[in-house]
Amino acid sequence: MKAVRYYGKEDLRIEDVPEQELVPGTVRIAPAWTGICGSDLHLYLDGPLPPAPSTDQPHPISGETLPVTLGHEFSGVVEELGEGVDDLAVGDHVVVEPLMVCGECGPCQEGRYNLCVKMGFIGISGRGGGLSEHIVVERRFVHPVGDMPLDQAALIEPLAVAVHAVRLSGATTGDLAVVGGAGPIGLLTAAVLKATGATVVVSEPSAARRERAASVADHVVDPGSEDLVAKVAELSGGEGAAVAYECAGVPAVLNVLLDVLKPGGVLQVVALFSGPPEINIAQVLMKELDVRGAIGYAGDHEYAIRLVQEGKVDVAPLITGRIAADDIVEQGYRTLVNDKEHSVKILVHM
Amino acid sequence: MKAVRYYGKEDLRIEDVPEQELVPGTVRIAPAWTGICGSDLHLYLDGPLPPAPSTDQPHPISGETLPVTLGHEFSGVVEELGEGVDDLAVGDHVVVEPLMVCGECGPCQEGRYNLCVKMGFIGISGRGGGLSEHIVVERRFVHPVGDMPLDQAALIEPLAVAVHAVRLSGATTGDLAVVGGAGPIGLLTAAVLKATGATVVVSEPSAARRERAASVADHVVDPGSEDLVAKVAELSGGEGAAVAYECAGVPAVLNVLLDVLKPGGVLQVVALFSGPPEINIAQVLMKELDVRGAIGYAGDHEYAIRLVQEGKVDVAPLITGRIAADDIVEQGYRTLVNDKEHSVKILVHM
Repeated sequence: MKAVRYYGKEDLRIEDVPEQELVPGTVRIAPAWTGICGSDLHLYLDGPLPPAPSTDQPHPISGETLPVTLGHEFSGVVEELGEGVDDLAVGDHVVVEPLMVCGECGPCQEGRYNLCVKMGFIGISGRGGGLSEHIVVERRFVHPVGDMPLDQAALIEPLAVAVHAVRLSGATTGDLAVVGGAGPIGLLTAAVLKATGATVVVSEPSAARRERAASVADHVVDPGSEDLVAKVAELSGGEGAAVAYECAGVPAVLNVLLDVLKPGGVLQVVALFSGPPEINIAQVLMKELDVRGAIGYAGDHEYAIRLVQEGKVDVAPLITGRIAADDIVEQGYRTLVNDKEHSVKILVHM
Repeated sequence: MKAVRYYGKEDLRIEDVPEQELVPGTVRIAPAWTGICGSDLHLYLDGPLPPAPSTDQPHPISGETLPVTLGHEFSGVVEELGEGVDDLAVGDHVVVEPLMVCGECGPCQEGRYNLCVKMGFIGISGRGGGLSEHIVVERRFVHPVGDMPLDQAALIEPLAVAVHAVRLSGATTGDLAVVGGAGPIGLLTAAVLKATGATVVVSEPSAARRERAASVADHVVDPGSEDLVAKVAELSGGEGAAVAYECAGVPAVLNVLLDVLKPGGVLQVVALFSGPPEINIAQVLMKELDVRGAIGYAGDHEYAIRLVQEGKVDVAPLITGRIAADDIVEQGYRTLVNDKEHSVKILVHM
């Protein structure tokens, strides 16, 4: 079968690979749409970094070295059920929670399997990916989506990231919440916060992104011309925000979000940073803030699916491109790099 | 009456000041012993910074400008009761929780009065201090200590800081806890953790401080010659520590504590830093750590007093000097600066 294979920095090849074996407890899926994620872009532009394996260091769970099949944000249709799988049917629309976990370490035992000490991603660390004609996945990581359109379903994975971050932050109805950055994860986080009953302020320097954010957030601020701290103070009667979300990976955003929080507030860090930022620790101390990290998801897909099914989150406007696998570099990666302002989520089909 | 007055950088004067008025709901106390704190040292060496007022900017609650009477870690004896105070008696041994709060802001209303937006300290921000012959304090901030020796009682204030930090961190019995730095707060935090049932590892570069720490901690590590991360891994079967406490104010300590934590662990930041440190945010994300600030105390004095009364924390060994107010600069501040290794808590009496 055909698959998009990642060989290393700026080296993708579409080639024939063997079908995976359908063992008991697994499901064979025909991927429909696969989103391109920031981490796919990093792998392509910068070369392999964990959880991707290298050419000589296999991933500890998959045991695979490069090349690997790409694609971890994907939807598809069930083609075949392995022995013992009796709660899905051939033809079901599904999404894959693309984790590979050991099941034995402390975090796995406690249900926080996204923190598995060996954690990897299907589509990055081996075991196939969404950018192939077929993929075999353990039943536990397959989530049916009912009659949700398969293009929208490809956004369940990043939506689950946002659900997870909002859940960890403890945001609740009536909270004033500030989101720093309106890329795909910032927009989805704002949408989940709205569904949670929070009042949402999004701060974003790009005009095109602010326009998108305006359809989900209560207030949108241009940090280049407006004072975010003053705006939040005004909206909260001088008190400050209860929760904030760093979805930009920018040190200045991290620190201004500490400034907007009220005493006892929570800063949920969702974005990856390119290096260790300086943090205004005096703010963390004097206001007894809580700076929390979030990575991936664990038990968040069901709720993400429900949010879309019930119309509480509309992911359709985030789809800014639909391309064929052959065009992934030119019309996918290059577009995301060169036209950040107007690109949110580009979907790929084989 | 005589009092030690702070006029600014390197300017302390012992002078006569008027007695404070005993208004309804207050208590007049004769201070017995007053500990010298790191913040006293900063005020003396570096000049006034909030919550201290300046010569022209009054503190928003006390309304006072410099000079102010010093001393916020103190014990004393009740001398006189204001109208309406009927649950204390003249002669009672007490300690003062040296906060001044507005009672009206969000945090005050929620009981987190240490986060009062106008918060100040008696003995730093005005309203007298422990370094005077008498002081009048609101009843709610006076805590009886029974027959606890008055020198030991002077350590209840820093012990309450440690109690507060351990409480915020959520440490519980059986946890593996790592304390970075064995100054007064580090030692007291280790002692509170022991009383909580945690297994305690203290990391401290000074040999003399390590020796003190050995009497409260289960394990003491010299980060100059030992690998703290390896030690914690060994003690936890490779899992990592549940909680860690930054009691050093040193960026390298902050980051090594992120390294020793297990996934989902909590780093409680207790020490003040001289500037914004770089933080290894990738660790915070990938392990979903929780970095929390702590400042002061709120509702922590009663438990701190009980820990000493029940013999669960022994503060006596931390008293390394007893001096007269006349000698506060030479035998107090200078000793703390020049002989950090052997000085923990120096107590002053008028």
